[in-house]
Amino acid sequence: MLFFPRPLQDPIRGRPKEIPHNEKLLSLKYESLDYDNIENQLFLEEERRMSPMGFRCLEISRWVICGLIGILTGLIACFIDIMVEKLAGYKYQVIKENIEKFTEVGGLSISLILWAVLNCAFVLVGGIMVAFFEPIAAGSGIPQIKCYLNGVKIPRVVRLKTLVVKVIGVICSVAGGLAVGKEGPMIHSGGVVAAGVSQGRSTSLKRDFKMFEYFRRDTEKRDFVSAGAAAGVSAAFGAPVGGVLFSLEEGASFWNQMLTWRIFFASMISTFTLNFFLSIYHGKPGDLSNPGLINFGRFESDSVAYYYYEIPLFMCMGALGGLLGALFNSLNYWLTIFRIRYVHRPCLQVMEALLVAAVTAAVSFTMIYFSNDCQPLGPERNEEYSLQLFCADGEYNSMATAFFNTPERSVRSLFHYQPGSYNPMTLGLFTLTYFFLACWTYGLAVSAGVFIPSLLIGAAWGRLCGILLASFTPTSPVGAPHSGIVRMTLSLTVIMVEATGNVTYGLPIMLVLMIAKIVGDYFQEGLYDIHIKLQSVPFLHWEAPATSHWLTAREVMSSPVTCFNRIEKVGTIVDVLSNTSTNHNGFPVVVQVLDSDEPAKLCGLILRSQLIVLLKHKVFVELARSRLSQRKLQLKDFRDAYPRFPPIQSIHVSQDERECMMDLTEFMNPTPYTVPQDTSLPRVFKLFRALGLRHLVVADDVNRVIGLVTRKDLARYHLGKHGLEELQLAQT
Amino acid sequence: MLFFPRPLQDPIRGRPKEIPHNEKLLSLKYESLDYDNIENQLFLEEERRMSPMGFRCLEISRWVICGLIGILTGLIACFIDIMVEKLAGYKYQVIKENIEKFTEVGGLSISLILWAVLNCAFVLVGGIMVAFFEPIAAGSGIPQIKCYLNGVKIPRVVRLKTLVVKVIGVICSVAGGLAVGKEGPMIHSGGVVAAGVSQGRSTSLKRDFKMFEYFRRDTEKRDFVSAGAAAGVSAAFGAPVGGVLFSLEEGASFWNQMLTWRIFFASMISTFTLNFFLSIYHGKPGDLSNPGLINFGRFESDSVAYYYYEIPLFMCMGALGGLLGALFNSLNYWLTIFRIRYVHRPCLQVMEALLVAAVTAAVSFTMIYFSNDCQPLGPERNEEYSLQLFCADGEYNSMATAFFNTPERSVRSLFHYQPGSYNPMTLGLFTLTYFFLACWTYGLAVSAGVFIPSLLIGAAWGRLCGILLASFTPTSPVGAPHSGIVRMTLSLTVIMVEATGNVTYGLPIMLVLMIAKIVGDYFQEGLYDIHIKLQSVPFLHWEAPATSHWLTAREVMSSPVTCFNRIEKVGTIVDVLSNTSTNHNGFPVVVQVLDSDEPAKLCGLILRSQLIVLLKHKVFVELARSRLSQRKLQLKDFRDAYPRFPPIQSIHVSQDERECMMDLTEFMNPTPYTVPQDTSLPRVFKLFRALGLRHLVVADDVNRVIGLVTRKDLARYHLGKHGLEELQLAQT
Repeated sequence: MLFFPRPLQDPIRGRPKEIPHNEKLLSLKYESLDYDNIENQLFLEEERRMSPMGFRCLEISRWVICGLIGILTGLIACFIDIMVEKLAGYKYQVIKENIEKFTEVGGLSISLILWAVLNCAFVLVGGIMVAFFEPIAAGSGIPQIKCYLNGVKIPRVVRLKTLVVKVIGVICSVAGGLAVGKEGPMIHSGGVVAAGVSQGRSTSLKRDFKMFEYFRRDTEKRDFVSAGAAAGVSAAFGAPVGGVLFSLEEGASFWNQMLTWRIFFASMISTFTLNFFLSIYHGKPGDLSNPGLINFGRFESDSVAYYYYEIPLFMCMGALGGLLGALFNSLNYWLTIFRIRYVHRPCLQVMEALLVAAVTAAVSFTMIYFSNDCQPLGPERNEEYSLQLFCADGEYNSMATAFFNTPERSVRSLFHYQPGSYNPMTLGLFTLTYFFLACWTYGLAVSAGVFIPSLLIGAAWGRLCGILLASFTPTSPVGAPHSGIVRMTLSLTVIMVEATGNVTYGLPIMLVLMIAKIVGDYFQEGLYDIHIKLQSVPFLHWEAPATSHWLTAREVMSSPVTCFNRIEKVGTIVDVLSNTSTNHNGFPVVVQVLDSDEPAKLCGLILRSQLIVLLKHKVFVELARSRLSQRKLQLKDFRDAYPRFPPIQSIHVSQDERECMMDLTEFMNPTPYTVPQDTSLPRVFKLFRALGLRHLVVADDVNRVIGLVTRKDLARYHLGKHGLEELQLAQT
Repeated sequence: MLFFPRPLQDPIRGRPKEIPHNEKLLSLKYESLDYDNIENQLFLEEERRMSPMGFRCLEISRWVICGLIGILTGLIACFIDIMVEKLAGYKYQVIKENIEKFTEVGGLSISLILWAVLNCAFVLVGGIMVAFFEPIAAGSGIPQIKCYLNGVKIPRVVRLKTLVVKVIGVICSVAGGLAVGKEGPMIHSGGVVAAGVSQGRSTSLKRDFKMFEYFRRDTEKRDFVSAGAAAGVSAAFGAPVGGVLFSLEEGASFWNQMLTWRIFFASMISTFTLNFFLSIYHGKPGDLSNPGLINFGRFESDSVAYYYYEIPLFMCMGALGGLLGALFNSLNYWLTIFRIRYVHRPCLQVMEALLVAAVTAAVSFTMIYFSNDCQPLGPERNEEYSLQLFCADGEYNSMATAFFNTPERSVRSLFHYQPGSYNPMTLGLFTLTYFFLACWTYGLAVSAGVFIPSLLIGAAWGRLCGILLASFTPTSPVGAPHSGIVRMTLSLTVIMVEATGNVTYGLPIMLVLMIAKIVGDYFQEGLYDIHIKLQSVPFLHWEAPATSHWLTAREVMSSPVTCFNRIEKVGTIVDVLSNTSTNHNGFPVVVQVLDSDEPAKLCGLILRSQLIVLLKHKVFVELARSRLSQRKLQLKDFRDAYPRFPPIQSIHVSQDERECMMDLTEFMNPTPYTVPQDTSLPRVFKLFRALGLRHLVVADDVNRVIGLVTRKDLARYHLGKHGLEELQLAQT
């Protein structure tokens, strides 16, 4: 199962419709976020009433919220880390004792079964949580956060329930020995924390702290979510700057200095919190020099010098990493399509997860069993779970250090064990096996990230090359497969540099990552982009497709547009909103000059959510006159309803009320952005991307509405192999 | 002299007008860049003709240009570094020999005179170059680049002549022993290189390579200049990621992933080039592990651990750094006003520079002379220019290592010399003196940066605190005064981390810099912002002032607006353009339906520069009919004239031609962005900032032009102590 639950499927759980995978689709079920149309008369009045002191208080609250986000994200990371360590430690201890018992007397198959059963038990818990309770918590959550920051609302992605399932799920899947990491889910967790804290309430828990009400709108919430994602990266890798860059690289379209500093602050606090509590847990309170969930250990400066003749070598490794990444993505693409078609029931998904867990255990066991790479057990190689197996006393099985361990520890061993700790055969087999395991695992119905597995592949393979070329080049090629898979460059470089704690390797790391990205891009998209595309998300890229200058707003827009009059009959509004076939979210408001032939002119734009609040509070002209409703509708009422506006079906409007009128003047955005119909697509695109628009009205030269451009209209166009292509809209 | 030459002064060199310094002004002399209004029919036709392959070629050219920018910037940095080292080395050698000769026999005043004369000679050359040839090359150039990236065209800022003067100027001022660094000017140099390379020609040298003609417009050029600035930072500090962040923090408003990667690429290449050539120069070809002009040396991992009880200490030092920075800025502010009033003639400026050079030499000499801090000359303290003076044999004067050295070397010594190398008295005196010297120096008519001086103050003072508190905390507080002065946070953190080559100190550095910034902001603006403000530049900040929601486009716009008809008489156009009192740069184009009472409707926007090209090529309707001009005007003609469009006075239009008509349809932007007059200032602001607008048409509900908002209209408003304030427009 994918990270977006049951795509393109009937609302009633059942067989999905035949999915035309040859066609390219754009789903209509994802709503867009709106950063612009909140500005109506009520809002402006509030802003005008506010003193400079009020704005300063708001600014301080923003900083406080970012601090809270950092602290909570750090605590969650801490909890995950300790739980994983405890559970995995317990598991490996039990299995190790069992293996040691049976090594001499035979009957190691019992150990294998024990191993597989323990793994499956963990994965079962995690899989059930994810598949039955909250399917959106599957996977790393990075694509979902990426979509959210891009402006697409993925249902339930920032809910408390998602967070709980995600945290338990990731603990189970890492403890269950799957080829996964716990870093990706931290980013999602940070986002959820941010979305929760910034709203000052939890809708799930039905608690409203009456705080931060000003921030209950899409623009502000999105800013905090980007801070949360950054805090997540920062906690995961101990890389605050990397976190900020990640947020920017994946999410931001409009760069704002103050926002960046707040994001930076949240990241700092998050690393610091994690660091502080882990240092206490590890019995070294106050030692803050080892931040992050993952820790590559310390690199001595002497061992990391490099020379210019190594540069071509790095470039080759980068290119190879790109190829590997493209292969990984292609395999995973086909696997994902297979899963969408055949593995869509929750019980099937759990069974697949169990299968993967058992196979992982079996493969690991077999590899360890048949490996005869014995290494002396030195003082510094005193890994906790080193297996002796059939090695002589004082020796350990080298293959086991790679498999019989959490992936983080394996990466560290690969970086730091002295030359000669591994023989090439072991490394080659390990790389190969782990590659396929990781590829199979990504996309299962478990919470898990792909960062550490790809890094582990890179580390094993980098070490292998190092041995083969008789030179020891530990860090730089490591990121290559990862860059080949996910195609982040700048933020990944900084994350790698911050995580290794050494800048010297910065330049080669950059070089390797960049080349891996270029090579990978040539063959296949990034993994996250593939999954986003398979989910038919209306994702806006950075720029309009290059060859789209001949398209204008006229071709792109939806037309005709359902408009409302400034003073509109309630019945009409209810009918339009109830019409399931259209399902529009924004409506231009027009004004008709009475007794005149002039066409109706655009005077504003109102959102479905705003209309629903108005209907719920029965803000009708007649009632206002008869003084039945004393209280004027305030901005607070909109904020209380945000973000879970009730559906129109839940609002009861009597036959009498249908004849009433509603005055939209105060509630609509009175100055929506408009473009003439000849505006080229790139210019429209730029408006959407830079301002975070959801609807853009197309008007003619006397200000009549002639069309409406939405995000989905823009996301339809993309540059394919044969020039500009247009995606179909899904029928669901 | 300031970095913007002779502000608010008559064009004829003479006494400046009485500058009303109590009033706040906005100068009209700076033009804005335009990222939007290039898109006319010719442009669209070209874009539509272009194949996907063509776009790919463009993309490749962009990468090639970024590579070239990186290489050239790296080479320039290399040249500056080697020249400074040679010249300064020669100077210190001569003086050292002289001092040694006179120490025993008396007559050290001759040495002092020699020192002062040598310094003055260097500064004289640099000062004359700057004051007489190219005053814009004064200072670090960072404020100018900041303005350019913000969208303000500072005259002559990216010209070849500026680059030459800047490079020679900075070599002279560093070799002349002033309290300056060579890093700031590198950023400006990178920007100039980028502006030149990306245009594929040099107007100064009158060479057109017929390359990259597509990039001859403001949007593209700005993108390359930001890459150049990043390459400059990268070369200066060996900090490619820091360079990217600097560009973003100071310049970018619209973040684009592809652009960021190109900037990153340019930065990488620049560091690499510098590194490569310097490694050859230093006789260690191929050792690439020491990038950057400044090099803090290697920090051993053991010496940099820190504990949480040090955190409050760091915070205090950050706060102190912020205070110091605010003091620096205030002093420099008053000094700058003094300079604007009284030191505006080039010869006076040169004399001031000479005075500072002489005083710097004298003060340094006096400090060294009266210092009796002798330290044993160990094997590792074998600094090239250590002075023995009155110390015993095998000892050296400790004050001299700080003063008798280039500032970069002094910083390195302060970081790395063993505990006990300095006594607190020496450090305290040095910090104090250097603080005032640096403050006096910034703003002189020499090319020089403030980065290294402020870092040196920070290092000396950090070391002092370290001694006093008996703990050795080398790096983290170092940046505090700098952050207090220039108020960059994120990029500075990364630069510091990259330059020290050690990530462990990342967190405390961030903390210190952030607190220094917050404290500094409380008292005084950043140094660059002060200078930008004193120059009355129409600089747009990140967001509209918080309390500006009650302002609408109606209050902000200029009105009435000079419009042109779509087919307009040449005489009218010439008259409007020649009218010096208005000096508009953009004109809405309207169309009047013939024989109708309807008002004229907006149908486009045309720029002064476009009209001038049209007039120059005599694109008149009558001539086209009579087939006198065979060739249709092409985009190329606009590109050839960019960016130095001739003034209207240089274009001769005969009396007959004045009666001709010009058809603007093809050349105007047919779909300018418009807003209704009720749009709030923050929304207008956001449009300007996010889209890089220069003109925004305000239209009423039948699409009549009722006003025009320009960047200057927006830059007028700012949040002062008593709420929203409006700047006056300068009368020059």
